[in-house]
Amino acid sequence: MREEPLSPVNSDSFSPATSRQSSSTIRKSPSALIGLQCHLCKTQFPAEASYVCGQCLGPLEPVYDYRAIRVTREEIEKRPKNLWRYLELLPIMDEPLTGLHSGFTPLVRCDRLAKRLGLSELYIKDDTVNHPTLSYKDRVVSVAATRAVELGFKVLACASTGNLANSVAAHAARLGLEACVFIPDNLEPGKVLGSAIYRPTILAIAGNYDDVNRLCTQVADRHGWGFVNINLRSYYAEGAKTLGFEIAEQLGWRYPRHIVSPVAGGTLLPRIHRGLRELREVGLVEGELPRIHAAQAAGCAPVVRALEAGLDHPEPVRPNTIAKSIAIGNPADGYQVIESVRTTGGTGAAVTDTQIIDAIQLLAETEGIFAEPAGGTTLAATIELVHRGVIQSGESVVVCVTGNGYKTMDVLDGRLAPPVRLGRGFKDFEAWWESTNGAGARSSSSTQPVA
Amino acid sequence: MREEPLSPVNSDSFSPATSRQSSSTIRKSPSALIGLQCHLCKTQFPAEASYVCGQCLGPLEPVYDYRAIRVTREEIEKRPKNLWRYLELLPIMDEPLTGLHSGFTPLVRCDRLAKRLGLSELYIKDDTVNHPTLSYKDRVVSVAATRAVELGFKVLACASTGNLANSVAAHAARLGLEACVFIPDNLEPGKVLGSAIYRPTILAIAGNYDDVNRLCTQVADRHGWGFVNINLRSYYAEGAKTLGFEIAEQLGWRYPRHIVSPVAGGTLLPRIHRGLRELREVGLVEGELPRIHAAQAAGCAPVVRALEAGLDHPEPVRPNTIAKSIAIGNPADGYQVIESVRTTGGTGAAVTDTQIIDAIQLLAETEGIFAEPAGGTTLAATIELVHRGVIQSGESVVVCVTGNGYKTMDVLDGRLAPPVRLGRGFKDFEAWWESTNGAGARSSSSTQPVA
Repeated sequence: MREEPLSPVNSDSFSPATSRQSSSTIRKSPSALIGLQCHLCKTQFPAEASYVCGQCLGPLEPVYDYRAIRVTREEIEKRPKNLWRYLELLPIMDEPLTGLHSGFTPLVRCDRLAKRLGLSELYIKDDTVNHPTLSYKDRVVSVAATRAVELGFKVLACASTGNLANSVAAHAARLGLEACVFIPDNLEPGKVLGSAIYRPTILAIAGNYDDVNRLCTQVADRHGWGFVNINLRSYYAEGAKTLGFEIAEQLGWRYPRHIVSPVAGGTLLPRIHRGLRELREVGLVEGELPRIHAAQAAGCAPVVRALEAGLDHPEPVRPNTIAKSIAIGNPADGYQVIESVRTTGGTGAAVTDTQIIDAIQLLAETEGIFAEPAGGTTLAATIELVHRGVIQSGESVVVCVTGNGYKTMDVLDGRLAPPVRLGRGFKDFEAWWESTNGAGARSSSSTQPVA
Repeated sequence: MREEPLSPVNSDSFSPATSRQSSSTIRKSPSALIGLQCHLCKTQFPAEASYVCGQCLGPLEPVYDYRAIRVTREEIEKRPKNLWRYLELLPIMDEPLTGLHSGFTPLVRCDRLAKRLGLSELYIKDDTVNHPTLSYKDRVVSVAATRAVELGFKVLACASTGNLANSVAAHAARLGLEACVFIPDNLEPGKVLGSAIYRPTILAIAGNYDDVNRLCTQVADRHGWGFVNINLRSYYAEGAKTLGFEIAEQLGWRYPRHIVSPVAGGTLLPRIHRGLRELREVGLVEGELPRIHAAQAAGCAPVVRALEAGLDHPEPVRPNTIAKSIAIGNPADGYQVIESVRTTGGTGAAVTDTQIIDAIQLLAETEGIFAEPAGGTTLAATIELVHRGVIQSGESVVVCVTGNGYKTMDVLDGRLAPPVRLGRGFKDFEAWWESTNGAGARSSSSTQPVA
């Protein structure tokens, strides 16, 4: 698959109101944003709240004047440790307003896990501790919320079943924006509460996620609210690039050989790809792009199935998996995911719910990191790719873990060994200890390599 | 209350095996640790797994050769963003082994919350996103676990009811150490699971927390396991200093006027005090120490009651509060807490469970940060201190929030407004919208100042 150029052919055709050239003297932000462009037919638009091309209905994405970007590695390294350190390549016009502590999450070198997988250089990109709502959504919402304020929206909204709603509600609270979260009415009470604490308006819709999404599109059109994943989607999606930027910077301004990303609506994977290409375009990183692989649950794997069948567009499926946060049967950006995977020489892997649970446990017991099922999916897919020989032992691998397991503990109910019950006397302890032949506090975990 | 000197009178009396002077040529770590010393009678001991003075039964604490420390602000600022950036003042002899992504959590400036409280400069020190287990315990466990390996322990253990067990299990997993977690047998299944995922041995003891703690003391003596909060307590507690170091550094190497800290077993508050004094001792920060205030739940406030009654030692109480993570009726370091509060001109505040819930909600709806009940306690105590005039409007305040609300969602069940339920048609939405007179997505939160 041919790589499209990153730079626009003609930056003069964008609206002057959002052009860097015409307003650089008054703006505080160094963003090189010049407008939006259709991903398919390349028609250009000003940087407004547009998300669909008027010509061909393709998705719009921001365009930057890469030639104007002069930032160095050293300048970036001196900036605050948040997602805005790559401001030149983010689609806002003024100062960041939220996300001042979001992003720049740990890239954790995992030697014990690597050994179990038969690898030598393995990292977890760990968004389980993203500020403030413990998932990668704090990146995309920070960007969408800041742009929403710039564009004059008074209400920040989304259609969601979990992490996104948490993040929208939290960032809106911090900004003092009204928030309205649309959810299917059969959500677990715990997930509702994880948004309700920030006191948004929560509308529970009698229908499934697709129904909710359809309603939100109508509300966005009629009421002019800023839906982060609908009319603000072009900006929102750019927040996901920061995960790619950080991987390269945290590796010492180099690319790994492989990146494994979860796929839900398809926002993240293509933007990791785009972010990595942009770093090369502006001269910050050299070398060959990594192979980017798509991880999905077998119970909801439209992109992996499309990759296997040689299709350009995924066929919608009906989700049936414990990995709720990535259970999107009809991914909005599925086409772009497939394009990025093929362009980089990546592949896809779909894994069962049992493999997902096993991977959550493996990551916890080897590295002390507790992932939600989406993270278990990504690690399980990585193991699958090692088994298949796609990832080989001497190659560097980054596994993206995008949400925290403490938010989804229900999936583990009844699946972990129960505690040992003892009386409170020292003799009770000693009796147990002797019954184990002095091996009582030895972990019951397997010491066999899994790969 | 008189301030004791920080530097030991005679550093030559410490064991040469742990003395910096005698081994500085071979050690990789720049720690200035020279031994342990009784907090009460000042008797000196080598840096072993000792925690009680053989002379007077007082608690032992590490002693450093402050004169040997030459580190500058600039050198510290260049180091990795984790709790080990203050290595000179931490009690390990070699390289850090865990916690390489723990600590250096956000200090969040909270202008919206400040306005609601009638303050001008308010910060949340936000350990809700500490890596990897979302509480301040990742600091103390990182230090205790590293020292446990140095001292040759094969099993890492603790007595705990929640956050500490999570953190011990996670850090032990990462180190490949055996872990054994002792808990009361009536713990909520969710809390057990939050440790079990890392696959430690979990011993559920038929008794309350005091029974568990007593048993652990016997096991530590008999089996030589490393209990982070018993025989490794001297080292463990030093990890809490890093929270104080970070506050000063993140404020631009200055002290705030007030710090409000939760009090449970009493580890944290005196070590924040100690850390701040040490920064002055080694020349990194100048000025007057902040007033440090103790926050407790009214249902378990032995330290606040002792402060009110003018006692030096808290009288044990039987806890009855939703703030389980700070529900320790007989705090091990209660004496030191009272000493630090009095020395700095601080005070105490005890708050009801209703105030705690209200404060959790206030923090979430103004700043998008979701605290566990201990964090709600600290913020509610801060509000109380503002009401009392102890904290005044022009003074800078740092509020320590030490654990994440996503781990304790059960306390909010039934206390938040339920979602609005709607049909899936656009007309259903419009009918609701009209019923609210176009104010549908307006937050229901109060806009009244709380102070």
